[in-house]
Amino acid sequence: MPETLSLALCKPDEMARLREQLGQPGLMGRSIESLRVFLEPHLAKPSDIPGHGEAGSYAHNQHQLNYRLCETAGTLFQITGEQCYADLAADLLTRYADCYLGLGFQKAKNTNPAGRIFHQILNENIWLLSMSIGYGSIRHTLSAGQCAHIEQQLLRPAVVMMTELYAHDFATIHNHGLWGVAAVGTCGLVIGDERYVQLALDGLAGDRKTGGYLAEISLLFAPSGYYIEGPYYHRFAMRALLLFAEALHTHRPDLDIYNFNDQVIRTTIRALLAVVTPNGCLPALNDASRTMGIHDEGLLIAAAVYNARYGDDPAVFALARQQGQVWVHPAALGLAAAADALQSDALPFWPSVELNEGPAGDKGAQGILRAKASDGDISQVLMNYGQHGMDHGHFDTLGITLFNRGEEVLREYGFARWLNVEPKFGGRYLPENLTWARQTVAHNCVTVDGRSQNDGDRNRADQVHGLPHFFVGSGAVQAMSAMANDHFVGVAMQRSLLLVTHEKLDTPVLVDLYRLRSDTEHVYDYAVQYAGQITETSAPVDYNRSQWTVLGEASGYQHLMGVANSRITEPCRITWLQGKRFNSWLSAATSGELLFGQLGGNDASFNLRRDTTLILRQRGSKHLFASAFETHGLFDEPSERCHGARGELTQIRVVGHDDQGSVVELTGRQLRLLVMVSNRADVTAQTEHEVRFDGTTYRWTGFFACEAVA
Amino acid sequence: MPETLSLALCKPDEMARLREQLGQPGLMGRSIESLRVFLEPHLAKPSDIPGHGEAGSYAHNQHQLNYRLCETAGTLFQITGEQCYADLAADLLTRYADCYLGLGFQKAKNTNPAGRIFHQILNENIWLLSMSIGYGSIRHTLSAGQCAHIEQQLLRPAVVMMTELYAHDFATIHNHGLWGVAAVGTCGLVIGDERYVQLALDGLAGDRKTGGYLAEISLLFAPSGYYIEGPYYHRFAMRALLLFAEALHTHRPDLDIYNFNDQVIRTTIRALLAVVTPNGCLPALNDASRTMGIHDEGLLIAAAVYNARYGDDPAVFALARQQGQVWVHPAALGLAAAADALQSDALPFWPSVELNEGPAGDKGAQGILRAKASDGDISQVLMNYGQHGMDHGHFDTLGITLFNRGEEVLREYGFARWLNVEPKFGGRYLPENLTWARQTVAHNCVTVDGRSQNDGDRNRADQVHGLPHFFVGSGAVQAMSAMANDHFVGVAMQRSLLLVTHEKLDTPVLVDLYRLRSDTEHVYDYAVQYAGQITETSAPVDYNRSQWTVLGEASGYQHLMGVANSRITEPCRITWLQGKRFNSWLSAATSGELLFGQLGGNDASFNLRRDTTLILRQRGSKHLFASAFETHGLFDEPSERCHGARGELTQIRVVGHDDQGSVVELTGRQLRLLVMVSNRADVTAQTEHEVRFDGTTYRWTGFFACEAVA
Repeated sequence: MPETLSLALCKPDEMARLREQLGQPGLMGRSIESLRVFLEPHLAKPSDIPGHGEAGSYAHNQHQLNYRLCETAGTLFQITGEQCYADLAADLLTRYADCYLGLGFQKAKNTNPAGRIFHQILNENIWLLSMSIGYGSIRHTLSAGQCAHIEQQLLRPAVVMMTELYAHDFATIHNHGLWGVAAVGTCGLVIGDERYVQLALDGLAGDRKTGGYLAEISLLFAPSGYYIEGPYYHRFAMRALLLFAEALHTHRPDLDIYNFNDQVIRTTIRALLAVVTPNGCLPALNDASRTMGIHDEGLLIAAAVYNARYGDDPAVFALARQQGQVWVHPAALGLAAAADALQSDALPFWPSVELNEGPAGDKGAQGILRAKASDGDISQVLMNYGQHGMDHGHFDTLGITLFNRGEEVLREYGFARWLNVEPKFGGRYLPENLTWARQTVAHNCVTVDGRSQNDGDRNRADQVHGLPHFFVGSGAVQAMSAMANDHFVGVAMQRSLLLVTHEKLDTPVLVDLYRLRSDTEHVYDYAVQYAGQITETSAPVDYNRSQWTVLGEASGYQHLMGVANSRITEPCRITWLQGKRFNSWLSAATSGELLFGQLGGNDASFNLRRDTTLILRQRGSKHLFASAFETHGLFDEPSERCHGARGELTQIRVVGHDDQGSVVELTGRQLRLLVMVSNRADVTAQTEHEVRFDGTTYRWTGFFACEAVA
Repeated sequence: MPETLSLALCKPDEMARLREQLGQPGLMGRSIESLRVFLEPHLAKPSDIPGHGEAGSYAHNQHQLNYRLCETAGTLFQITGEQCYADLAADLLTRYADCYLGLGFQKAKNTNPAGRIFHQILNENIWLLSMSIGYGSIRHTLSAGQCAHIEQQLLRPAVVMMTELYAHDFATIHNHGLWGVAAVGTCGLVIGDERYVQLALDGLAGDRKTGGYLAEISLLFAPSGYYIEGPYYHRFAMRALLLFAEALHTHRPDLDIYNFNDQVIRTTIRALLAVVTPNGCLPALNDASRTMGIHDEGLLIAAAVYNARYGDDPAVFALARQQGQVWVHPAALGLAAAADALQSDALPFWPSVELNEGPAGDKGAQGILRAKASDGDISQVLMNYGQHGMDHGHFDTLGITLFNRGEEVLREYGFARWLNVEPKFGGRYLPENLTWARQTVAHNCVTVDGRSQNDGDRNRADQVHGLPHFFVGSGAVQAMSAMANDHFVGVAMQRSLLLVTHEKLDTPVLVDLYRLRSDTEHVYDYAVQYAGQITETSAPVDYNRSQWTVLGEASGYQHLMGVANSRITEPCRITWLQGKRFNSWLSAATSGELLFGQLGGNDASFNLRRDTTLILRQRGSKHLFASAFETHGLFDEPSERCHGARGELTQIRVVGHDDQGSVVELTGRQLRLLVMVSNRADVTAQTEHEVRFDGTTYRWTGFFACEAVA
């Protein structure tokens, strides 16, 4: 057998540098220790290689555990030199090699082809990548016969399945494609088969265009680095992308992968980190888990690689502290040391950012405004004015979320899926993902005539996108505005958001101007997804005391039970307690109806959470929904302390709106602000505006203005 | 002015011992530091003494803050000698003295008389106690004129109001009474007025029987130390009780208060600590907050005093670690040191306990069984078979709660009240407290013919109580049983609970046998209060897809929307995900109906949480509800790991039941257990049982048996 070769992802002497961290109190020392604790109970047990099973089943879980054990054991063997780790990895590899070709194929459960071990080839890609890394770490300890057995009976057959049997699926430009090429390429590097590496890099056609790693990383991301399916899939792709990048950095320095394509890897890591919410979760755009975040291995690797390959950013140091662990890999040594040296646990403050979409960056964008309260708490508002998220897209263009004080206030539902929970349809997507989670009314959005955008048709949605209007991501008042004119036939929409900091406000306030224009009359439903206990409503409520009925038949309304409603005759305020904070929504509406909805209709399998929705319903052709959202006060139930149950703001009022601009007035106990926003599609920072409403003239320059009123 | 006298609660030289802890890393050092951090922002500000306000209002909150500031400033002055603290306390006392008699009286909002500062005299008692302690700490730094001003214009008028104007309310035997006597007595000790001390100790009549501190602590508690209103009120009374006890310990050693009445103070502290749930909350028996717990000052003081006056108990050391702070007082020095010396953060494990009720201990009891899982997690099941909780009582005799894995699985609703949340009816009790929270169906209980126990009539409920049957609080299978024959006319009830540990079970399983006997036919509803997402049901569910209707007109049913129902034809299982754990309820029912309810009916002010209830409905005269509750598996959404979504248990089956005993069989994938429970009211540990069902004879000795079946 060959002497000690390079490892899959780095050189052995680099790995040896981790040895100094063993038992040390810093981030890296603790991260290594947690791997040892993870492996400890498995060292004494014989390997367990079961047969086939559903997602969430015992068999599925054990196969997932096995590849993590193999990769981790290899890593710990490299760091510690302790033979027990090499033995564990070798046993797993050998035992899989014993049975792999005899397992037969799983039954495919969705569009993804089935593997021999897992019900979808995607999982087998992930498995192969980790098993290859583990093999690379211990191969030099095995006999030639052992190596031949593992390579001939396990690794090569897996690659053949992926690249030949499923050639149609291999290396396609998609997040799944990245896993395939990363697995096959890394396997090729470890067993020294240059052909595998070539297939992985250049694609089956060898053209670096229709497939393969270099094409993937050239084509998958917008110029901003944003990935069309959204952060949940982005972080998933990131792990494969960066593991193979590290392998290429080590073994193929000629590619200079980290400078490839104008440093696309830097840009796309940065774009992923830029969307992280202050609580460390990723925004649940499109089909996504609400709780996925910075503790995922994709983000651990991203932080380490960004720091190692592209230099210092103190926000990344703060991120590593928030993560509380680092990737156990030499690339993370610098990050761990920098994070250890930080004097504070302050959260990373990622700046406001607009991430363009589409290959040329001209298919709309995701806009994120962030501002700090006087006590340092970070508010974040996100608006989606980009593309439909492919297979996983939601019909929520101009949809928003708002986060502050540790809670998502205006909420994403996320996906209707209980991932890996076997009794919930094998952990797969549930029917309610289509009928609720993707529908427009399930978001903080406006529906027209009770229908979803593009009538819920993905093919139509793929053809359109939002239009950025303006974005101002700094200053005491930040703002962004976008339009969506192709999402409802005959209805033009513009949404403008201002994040207002002010000395009289504990927490930055969100002002939301959602404007609709049509030549014909429609029913416009402005939906607010909230959580918590309603504490006060300014408008009288007509409560459905003894019977609740669904609010509609389709487009998600069939899942909403109508709990109560209010006739609106003057600007109103509704306040709810979410966790420890009160939130008030103020609306300028002087007519229409407010509906109180709760999920649960047509949910015969109890697949939906019992989340709550407020719907402000208006009839009209041209309409401006003007709202303000204020988070205020504190209720700490265990200590029975409460203050600020009523907020600073008392009213929002529409002064007027036309094609030049919209003017609204925001009144509080101690403040009065005039907010003026440009509605001109051609607006620039220099555009002069003059509008006249009710005999008063309002003037401002540029995108918007927010002025104190005497 | 007099020289430095003793402080309110201890001698100055004792207080000085705390000085050594300043800046130290231990529990006491950190606790002192947290007081400094609390006071810091208030040192530079002028005192703020507002006028009248509702609970939760700015004025109310500020008055509450002021007495905490005064007491804390006095304590910190004693510890640090820093003049700024004395100045803060002096300024507050002087400013209150300036205005107190001019404030007029608040408007009374409930049965409690109004004070000058607060809307109920109870709050003014609390205020006076803290102000007196603060005054005692700094009095020697004031001029004679300052002292006279504070005593004549503030402290004495407050005492006069409490003992003369509200003489009818002072020193009554009640938790409020404790606050009155503690305040007046401590004030008397501090200003040196022996008459006040005498009134506080002996009551207005001076007989030590109809009122006063010594009568209170002699009469308020059962022999077990249990307080009839439940733990939420017990911990509240505890603060006043123990502060005055410490004052008497210092100033009236002749009373030997800690040995008074056979160490009643020891017994009642012990009874309070004995009910704490593993997550550090108090069981929400009767009207109570669900989140009140060990961080409350009453429990901080209780831990310190118990340790200082009654010696070592390692469970109390572990409690102090769980609390993360100690009372800043010399009595807590030993506890802080012992907690610091502990090597582990293991939670305190309080033993299983039966706490009798009533002055003679013969009015039923509260039973708590606790068992550890193999990994150390603590399961706790509590059954109420005691008295009605006075003004705050719920109609839930034989009601139970179950806690494990960090969650309350079978849940108490707690009170319908948002304490100190001003827009919620001034933070007072809400109408739904009567119509839902107190009703039988709101608990884990059985209703008869859709009515609450004693028809929801407190006067009737006060006349009856539960009957202890047996209690076995140790061993691999623990059990308790109780009867309640006077709560529904013509219906006798017996509930027997077993907490079963077994090598095949990750978490101890609760077996619940609820037996009803009547000569006439009734509708029996067995209610289960659960939280979370239903993941699986063995019986087909008929879901109310588009319309939900309330389940009844009264007794709490008017608040439950009917979401779905199942016709039961064979033993069934229903599983839900609560947080990270799955819970399965297995029922032996072979007929009847399962109703899925959700709160929200007739809740026009959104006062109720949207909690969920399962109701198993049976028609019959004699019926045994046999259930098992198993917590199993893990779902960690952020890491997308899941296992054990299906539990070990597959079925529970009733073999038979008669007046001798009940026999049920519990079947799992890897276990099969026969559970036999005595139904004989005269059972002893030696009673021989022999019952015959379906041709098979079952024999056991004593209260119950749990045997493996071949």
